[in-house]
Amino acid sequence: MSFSEKDVVTMAHGSGGQAMQQLIESLFLQAFSNAALNEREDQARIPLSKLTSLGDRLAFSTDSYVIDPLFFPGGNIGKLAVCGTVNDVAVSGAVPQYLSCGFILEEGLPLKDLEQIVTAMAKTAADAGVEIVTGDTKVVQRGAADKVFINTAGIGTISSAIQWGAQHIQPGDRILVSGTLGDHGATILNLREGLGLEAELKSDCAVLTPLIAPLRDIPGVRALRDATRGGVTAILHEFAAASGCGMSISEGALPVKNAVRGVCELLGLEPLNFANEGKLVIVVSPEAEQETLTRLRAHPLGQDAAAIGTVTENKRVQLTGIFGATRLLDLPHSEPLPRIC
Amino acid sequence: MSFSEKDVVTMAHGSGGQAMQQLIESLFLQAFSNAALNEREDQARIPLSKLTSLGDRLAFSTDSYVIDPLFFPGGNIGKLAVCGTVNDVAVSGAVPQYLSCGFILEEGLPLKDLEQIVTAMAKTAADAGVEIVTGDTKVVQRGAADKVFINTAGIGTISSAIQWGAQHIQPGDRILVSGTLGDHGATILNLREGLGLEAELKSDCAVLTPLIAPLRDIPGVRALRDATRGGVTAILHEFAAASGCGMSISEGALPVKNAVRGVCELLGLEPLNFANEGKLVIVVSPEAEQETLTRLRAHPLGQDAAAIGTVTENKRVQLTGIFGATRLLDLPHSEPLPRIC
Repeated sequence: MSFSEKDVVTMAHGSGGQAMQQLIESLFLQAFSNAALNEREDQARIPLSKLTSLGDRLAFSTDSYVIDPLFFPGGNIGKLAVCGTVNDVAVSGAVPQYLSCGFILEEGLPLKDLEQIVTAMAKTAADAGVEIVTGDTKVVQRGAADKVFINTAGIGTISSAIQWGAQHIQPGDRILVSGTLGDHGATILNLREGLGLEAELKSDCAVLTPLIAPLRDIPGVRALRDATRGGVTAILHEFAAASGCGMSISEGALPVKNAVRGVCELLGLEPLNFANEGKLVIVVSPEAEQETLTRLRAHPLGQDAAAIGTVTENKRVQLTGIFGATRLLDLPHSEPLPRIC
Repeated sequence: MSFSEKDVVTMAHGSGGQAMQQLIESLFLQAFSNAALNEREDQARIPLSKLTSLGDRLAFSTDSYVIDPLFFPGGNIGKLAVCGTVNDVAVSGAVPQYLSCGFILEEGLPLKDLEQIVTAMAKTAADAGVEIVTGDTKVVQRGAADKVFINTAGIGTISSAIQWGAQHIQPGDRILVSGTLGDHGATILNLREGLGLEAELKSDCAVLTPLIAPLRDIPGVRALRDATRGGVTAILHEFAAASGCGMSISEGALPVKNAVRGVCELLGLEPLNFANEGKLVIVVSPEAEQETLTRLRAHPLGQDAAAIGTVTENKRVQLTGIFGATRLLDLPHSEPLPRIC
């Protein structure tokens, strides 16, 4: 792993030939090294006892990452590709354990950039206790993809004691968020639009397993999701559709950083619709609210956790403004900006 | 699922908003419907008993598919994305069970094309007894990707009786292939170069599980791989590297269709280096050779199965020509053509 500024991805790196073998050896195998990967078979082989010792159900999820730009304050596409999929596994209550990883590289991508991305993936996975056990590399000609796309699929095990799911949500339940909203979306928007707020904005891209783990034995936890594309608004609509309940939240209760609020006011956008990459929306029974907030706030990633509303019997998703007026919170037809993740 | 010729993928289909929900509901959920997917959580949840009842190890693999053109004689990118990953799981000896699926769509892709691709995926998976249980859709702006890329990750269970792996290969073992070589590569090359041989060439894209299943209880099976990118040559080099043995094959024993041979002679290319999407390279003990060939030939996918060579003590990968001259079979630096899968 010692690429010069001039070294770039070539079509040969995606062939089945020597150049691809060299890239795999010198970069991926070194960065991600683990027993299953090092066997170099067409598939990772994992003893099922490593899963069954932790619970009774497998959680399996995937996401592709196409974010532009590749590098941003708080992370890069590689860190994001690990965090995003690990979080999609973890919000089921599972312990995330293994990832697959598929790269689609554009001919001409600087290998130094790829190395930085891969290094971030390896570090993020190691910190999360997750192994990248199998992978694939494709190269497409210049102009047929934009720099690099990454897909990760993740698996983990759900303990038999945990039964989280949106269908368990009931009227009277409380709606919590684990911290400030919209940081990731505002960061990317700022970079994309050249608003000049780099010093104040940073993506919240993070692995949420350590924030979720202490919630596993709280009896009243109904459902968790991480509020990525579509933001909190999309999650509230998903919860409403799955439970047949309404979701009523208070504008005044929403934790939003000043810089994010500034970007939103400048552009007439809504932080509730912004993507986050390290924030949970959690529905809990009223009895579990305080304990859940206490445990969230005990972790640095959850220090700004807040109760933002209540589950209702009517089926509306609505927001009560700071002056008391209530309006429907529509799911937008599309998002403020493309390629946010 | 009733798209007109004018309906195309828009950026809104990749947002977290209503347009994406509608695409998921009207296309993906209908085509792939199954219990885990229909729960619409951020992850599929699968009882581990469905895995442990079949064996003691999980097989986990991934591939991204970037083939150009999307549609070709014998299949399309959707069928390929299911076959390829199912085969990468199956060659471990595992029963493939579940797939994830990530789409990267270019703005402007006709929805009729996407529908045709998704329908092929659903049919191929159903025929293979595999469920597509979790997925993701991203859209990038026109020019930032070429039409559609698909990633699939697959999992399955390996029976405790099976211990296949390239490290078990020994000198004296026999090298078999399950059928004619180079059909997929020649088909794509013909389309790409406009050679006009469409009537004679067809991709061999197929799920190989039914061909592999009867081999599971043959004692002398050492290792299996499917010969995709890099062709048989790449597999022989992988087997040599993992086992420390040499691989010696006979040109006269290679099953190659006349049309494929014609394309190769026309362009000065080597069918051994061509990608296949439905062919196995199998190494077996001498005692297991006849039984393995008999079982392969009993299935339509294996009717042209042949023994092509022998594992040797020297570490060379070599080919003996039809006139008796022996030459090294080098792993090419790169492949004859990009975006073959």
